[in-house]
Amino acid sequence: MPEPAHTVEGWHVVHDFRSIDWRAWKTAPAADRTRALEALEALLTDWQKAEDEGRGSYGVFQIVGQKADLLFLHFRPTLDELLAVKTAFNQTTLADFLRPAYGYYSIVELGGYTGNPEEDPWAKARLYPKVHRDGYVCFYPMNKKRAGADNWYMLPQEERARMMHSHGDIGKKYRGRVTQVISGSQGLDDWEWGVTLYAPDPIHFKKIIYEMRFDEVSARFGEFGPFYVGKGLDLGGLKALFSF
Amino acid sequence: MPEPAHTVEGWHVVHDFRSIDWRAWKTAPAADRTRALEALEALLTDWQKAEDEGRGSYGVFQIVGQKADLLFLHFRPTLDELLAVKTAFNQTTLADFLRPAYGYYSIVELGGYTGNPEEDPWAKARLYPKVHRDGYVCFYPMNKKRAGADNWYMLPQEERARMMHSHGDIGKKYRGRVTQVISGSQGLDDWEWGVTLYAPDPIHFKKIIYEMRFDEVSARFGEFGPFYVGKGLDLGGLKALFSF
Amino acid sequence: MPEPAHTVEGWHVVHDFRSIDWRAWKTAPAADRTRALEALEALLTDWQKAEDEGRGSYGVFQIVGQKADLLFLHFRPTLDELLAVKTAFNQTTLADFLRPAYGYYSIVELGGYTGNPEEDPWAKARLYPKVHRDGYVCFYPMNKKRAGADNWYMLPQEERARMMHSHGDIGKKYRGRVTQVISGSQGLDDWEWGVTLYAPDPIHFKKIIYEMRFDEVSARFGEFGPFYVGKGLDLGGLKALFSF
Amino acid sequence: MPEPAHTVEGWHVVHDFRSIDWRAWKTAPAADRTRALEALEALLTDWQKAEDEGRGSYGVFQIVGQKADLLFLHFRPTLDELLAVKTAFNQTTLADFLRPAYGYYSIVELGGYTGNPEEDPWAKARLYPKVHRDGYVCFYPMNKKRAGADNWYMLPQEERARMMHSHGDIGKKYRGRVTQVISGSQGLDDWEWGVTLYAPDPIHFKKIIYEMRFDEVSARFGEFGPFYVGKGLDLGGLKALFSF
Amino acid sequence: MPEPAHTVEGWHVVHDFRSIDWRAWKTAPAADRTRALEALEALLTDWQKAEDEGRGSYGVFQIVGQKADLLFLHFRPTLDELLAVKTAFNQTTLADFLRPAYGYYSIVELGGYTGNPEEDPWAKARLYPKVHRDGYVCFYPMNKKRAGADNWYMLPQEERARMMHSHGDIGKKYRGRVTQVISGSQGLDDWEWGVTLYAPDPIHFKKIIYEMRFDEVSARFGEFGPFYVGKGLDLGGLKALFSF
Repeated sequence: MPEPAHTVEGWHVVHDFRSIDWRAWKTAPAADRTRALEALEALLTDWQKAEDEGRGSYGVFQIVGQKADLLFLHFRPTLDELLAVKTAFNQTTLADFLRPAYGYYSIVELGGYTGNPEEDPWAKARLYPKVHRDGYVCFYPMNKKRAGADNWYMLPQEERARMMHSHGDIGKKYRGRVTQVISGSQGLDDWEWGVTLYAPDPIHFKKIIYEMRFDEVSARFGEFGPFYVGKGLDLGGLKALFSF
Repeated sequence: MPEPAHTVEGWHVVHDFRSIDWRAWKTAPAADRTRALEALEALLTDWQKAEDEGRGSYGVFQIVGQKADLLFLHFRPTLDELLAVKTAFNQTTLADFLRPAYGYYSIVELGGYTGNPEEDPWAKARLYPKVHRDGYVCFYPMNKKRAGADNWYMLPQEERARMMHSHGDIGKKYRGRVTQVISGSQGLDDWEWGVTLYAPDPIHFKKIIYEMRFDEVSARFGEFGPFYVGKGLDLGGLKALFSF
Repeated sequence: MPEPAHTVEGWHVVHDFRSIDWRAWKTAPAADRTRALEALEALLTDWQKAEDEGRGSYGVFQIVGQKADLLFLHFRPTLDELLAVKTAFNQTTLADFLRPAYGYYSIVELGGYTGNPEEDPWAKARLYPKVHRDGYVCFYPMNKKRAGADNWYMLPQEERARMMHSHGDIGKKYRGRVTQVISGSQGLDDWEWGVTLYAPDPIHFKKIIYEMRFDEVSARFGEFGPFYVGKGLDLGGLKALFSF
Repeated sequence: MPEPAHTVEGWHVVHDFRSIDWRAWKTAPAADRTRALEALEALLTDWQKAEDEGRGSYGVFQIVGQKADLLFLHFRPTLDELLAVKTAFNQTTLADFLRPAYGYYSIVELGGYTGNPEEDPWAKARLYPKVHRDGYVCFYPMNKKRAGADNWYMLPQEERARMMHSHGDIGKKYRGRVTQVISGSQGLDDWEWGVTLYAPDPIHFKKIIYEMRFDEVSARFGEFGPFYVGKGLDLGGLKALFSF
Repeated sequence: MPEPAHTVEGWHVVHDFRSIDWRAWKTAPAADRTRALEALEALLTDWQKAEDEGRGSYGVFQIVGQKADLLFLHFRPTLDELLAVKTAFNQTTLADFLRPAYGYYSIVELGGYTGNPEEDPWAKARLYPKVHRDGYVCFYPMNKKRAGADNWYMLPQEERARMMHSHGDIGKKYRGRVTQVISGSQGLDDWEWGVTLYAPDPIHFKKIIYEMRFDEVSARFGEFGPFYVGKGLDLGGLKALFSF
């Protein structure tokens, strides 16, 4: 049996994609719309407070296309806190206008890391990452293939390590343009990993994923789920979106 | 033809995942909400009574993400009793606010067991398992692959037994952290098995599934359905969830 | 080109799975509910009359899990009569509370049979089978695989016949416990066959399907659709189900 | 690169499958139902006129099972005319009770034909076919497989021609029982071809598809979509269907 | 690791397919319908202005079949501008009658191009293409296969270049009949590319896709998503569509 790589884990993550029920929103009484926007503001305040106190991070993004309209992204130290965020959100009037579109649960991980992350600032920054709210986001879940001769989990660890190293070299070329957060979801959700990318321009998402696809680890072993791309929104941007 | 392993069966199981219809709940007359919560309390009392009398076990869990909000998990000696649980549930006002999200029917099994389970406390505890309601739950259905050279059902029994033994060794490493219930669903539902895991911390779900994936029986033969993770809720927790 | 086996055909079959719209049912005026239950009783009377006159057979089953609540199973000599059953059902008030969940159209067949079924009581009983309404039912559709080296339809007929014979031997072991109806649906519905099993205890569905999966014809060539399991309901049982 | 076969094209085709919204229909004001049935009659008159003038053909069929209730089948010389049929249909009150269930767009083709179809009555009858409205219909879309060693499009043309010829021989055996219309949909819809069969008895659909599946072109290369089977309805039959 | 081809990028693209909610449209107050059509006219004016100012291009098409009724096609220099188009559209009354049916986000690309597109009129015309609004459109997304021996991304660049060259030769044969826009969506949406074709007659879509499928790059490596075909509509055509 091939030896798994050592992994260490950080924050729990939920990607909560929502579609605006525009017809309901436009026909709602003004009082309900006011209450919904007040709830939004209160939620943002709570989430910011948690971030300020080191209990997680958050971001809200407008998503392009029809798959969703908004992404609410939450990092928290525990599943309990993520469940509390879910409950508080669904209890608001705001949630009545935001239909679930896609959700994903995972835990930030460093694969192949063998140090002590609590004493290593590099590892801590990766395990407890702040959301980049002022640019663009890309999210997709993925698997490593297990089909016939292309079975990642049957490879010796050295071969996997060699391929992941070459893969990482491409990532390094994009340093400063693309920031990546890897979260594992084996045993937690329907794919094996979630990948969250941040960039100051969405063209970088296209460039890095295109280049990586020729890398053996992606070409032979990568299986990719849906891709979601969006742009960070602050309270002002959200209020403008909901005005009509 | 390869010889199947001997299996013995215990309780019938239904995993009943539901999504809360929050908009309907919030706009329902207060009297309907009261009746729904009274129905919930009455159901919990009935389920507890069945458990106290050795006629099954149950649990309610809050599910993370968008795939569902709640899991109602039921073990019973017969399908008839599970059908009665289903009918009683759907007849309540509560059910009107809980849309079906995913369901699974299976029967607890011990694979490769050749003893007399009724005289073996170890086997009885596994065939008639109590739900762990005070921690975390993970559920997923799975198949054994039948594709070209990777066809589980064409292997000699000794080879299957060897692989399952090695698989079990990983499970033993997690003793005290992860409790596993295997239920067979060939001829009963859309996958071949359901797997229910309990743990005091959801990180263990990630760790054990990750490690097992490198094991030949998973790497070459495991096909996995959707994964659901949640946390046990008692009556107080349920009432808090439904408050707004 | 491999020679197809000779087949003879009997009754046309529709499996009509429905989900109860409980919220609509509970909020419907009492007069509508009364009319719906009267329609149910009238339908059962019609279906029984057709069965008594040798023009088909029928059964109603409560289905476990969330995939459906009820199965209405109909055998008739012609498609026209099945279409008439569909129209009459949908025209009732009852149908307004029973949303379609899954349907399947097929024709009972005896594969590899070369006798004259009209002069052979054994064949007639198989081609024009009465529904077993007093126990449990299992339904699933299936294909024979056509993938690379595992292509059923490219095998010589003798090899197919040998495998089907061995397959039949397992079926014989379950005689008295499991009754099987095979209906072909090539050119009629989305899979190649429908399989309907009856048993006095649902555990037999699990046992026979598990054992058969190790048989080469299933292991290498079986592709299985969704599985539905339920229990026969008479008028009294149906009325109890709809009471609340 | 293998040489494609020569094809010639005839009428454009839309298969428009619809489900009756029975609950809406039964609760609609009588005036709306009257208007809907008047619209149906007017549409049938228009479609008949187009057929009488050689500008196409049409048929309405009742579909068995739950996948749809009705098929509206339209042949026209151009896409523009099919779009006009779509718009006119959707603008009627009738359409408000007929939810889309499945649709398919294709163009009638003769594959491997190298003559001048306009001077060849045999070819003209195949390219501009009249709908058989007085018996049974079967529709399914299909692809030719492109997987590893079973890649239709990598075969030399002679080998494809040989296999198609053998395939045609089976079709000829069913002459008088099954009439076939092949329409190509590469570049037009989600599968490569649509197949429409007519027969005086639906058993012939089962027999021909079963026999053809053992033919190499189907066994190795056929990938099949959903199958829909129905029976021709005239105005009287349609009115009876909508009575309740 | 095989070297990726060099690509350059142009405008961002959204394909926004919508289904008309005919029942809502017909039962809406006349004032709402008037407002919706006024909004449509205002949007068309805005989109035309952007095109006139070189800030993008747009088109509206009526789609055949049931997959959608309309395509709103938008090219813009940045994702921000596409998000603004989305928001403005959804804020109108018109959008309340146009349910999302399928959406796609991609960026126009020239693959294998190594010149300076800003100084090359040929490249500029391809990277910043005007929508052909007066004929027919075909859209489909696609992948290059990565399965066993048929893995596009594991091929040497010369082999990929040779195959793409042969592929381009077919495209050249259709010059004057079919205009093609390739947009990359790796890292942006669920397939690797979007393909938009324009033609004066939809038969050309069928002909070119059929011929290309025998080309090795399509036969062995092409994986195709859904196909959408439609016809350009101007304001008059749109108003006629919405009249009833």
